Amino acid sequence: MASSGCEGHAGQEGETFLYFAYGSNLLTERIHLRNPSAVFCCVARLQDFKLDFGNFQGKTSERWHGGIATIFQSPGDEVWGVVWKMNKSNLSSLDEQEGVKSGVYVVIEIKVSTQEGKEITCRSYLMTNYESAPPSPQYKKVICMGAEENGLPLEYQEKLKAIEPNDYKGKISDEMEEIIKKGESKLYRT
Amino acid sequence: MASSGCEGHAGQEGETFLYFAYGSNLLTERIHLRNPSAVFCCVARLQDFKLDFGNFQGKTSERWHGGIATIFQSPGDEVWGVVWKMNKSNLSSLDEQEGVKSGVYVVIEIKVSTQEGKEITCRSYLMTNYESAPPSPQYKKVICMGAEENGLPLEYQEKLKAIEPNDYKGKISDEMEEIIKKGESKLYRT
Repeated sequence: MASSGCEGHAGQEGETFLYFAYGSNLLTERIHLRNPSAVFCCVARLQDFKLDFGNFQGKTSERWHGGIATIFQSPGDEVWGVVWKMNKSNLSSLDEQEGVKSGVYVVIEIKVSTQEGKEITCRSYLMTNYESAPPSPQYKKVICMGAEENGLPLEYQEKLKAIEPNDYKGKISDEMEEIIKKGESKLYRT
Repeated sequence: MASSGCEGHAGQEGETFLYFAYGSNLLTERIHLRNPSAVFCCVARLQDFKLDFGNFQGKTSERWHGGIATIFQSPGDEVWGVVWKMNKSNLSSLDEQEGVKSGVYVVIEIKVSTQEGKEITCRSYLMTNYESAPPSPQYKKVICMGAEENGLPLEYQEKLKAIEPNDYKGKISDEMEEIIKKGESKLYRT
């Protein structure tokens, strides 16, 4: 997929900013639910961090019924994600979606590397206070679908697929169930 | 102390940025060691975070011989600090001093509140992967001195003074020992 979304983007100045997604916002349909103006920029690697899942203050997410994605510093590890170009007018809405106001996620600024070796500065989010807990099957599915849809390296996709979800057997929101259904039919169409 | 350093500062745009310090950079002499252009902006409060001390990946700091300051999300708690106005040309140097390149600290963006109730967006840093460990007596001293020098609320100063340091009995760097000595004579001059 062409990375034309990022041409001429000068860091975080100007009318837009770059957001590095590594969780459910890997999936185009999912990010467009609340951020219709998000434009795919590129796939990128965050060095010396590791993906994790957990419950903020030990409380399970009511949306996802399992641990939610976060990252933490871990020398030698890496997290792959999608860089989305977003309008600055979308910034506080994205912060809110990411639970910054409620104190769950903190805004971070990171440098990620594109597959061409270019380094770009992005906004992202992480939790600093959580108990590790596996994701629900549906949450894991959205993440894996996004990783596949946007062409994250196969090795990393395999790591994501190998994550053991929890044993949640209920439903998640209609909205998300719909997205999963749509996504599955899109990806498995021959 | 007048907060004239921040007059007319429009967030993080333009030639300067605001840095929220909560550790050894609370002390003017300490921050000026490597950032001579830092200008005192104001004292501010970071809501729903808590101060902690620790060793990144369990390894003791060679500079401070004990746990180094960090913050984490904790609803209901607060961290007081000093907001410094810095030149953007100082930004990557500050990141490096804060151990961002070496992967110890991650850059965060936070909203802090001044004592006049104004909310300002600041750059700061925290560790995501560390083992809690008490600070050395010297490190604690620098922090307490900074808190006193820059007029952090007395109640918070008491909390800092009540922190139990480790039992490190050796020296730290000449530079820092000098700063502590100078600071002590300044603060205890009658």
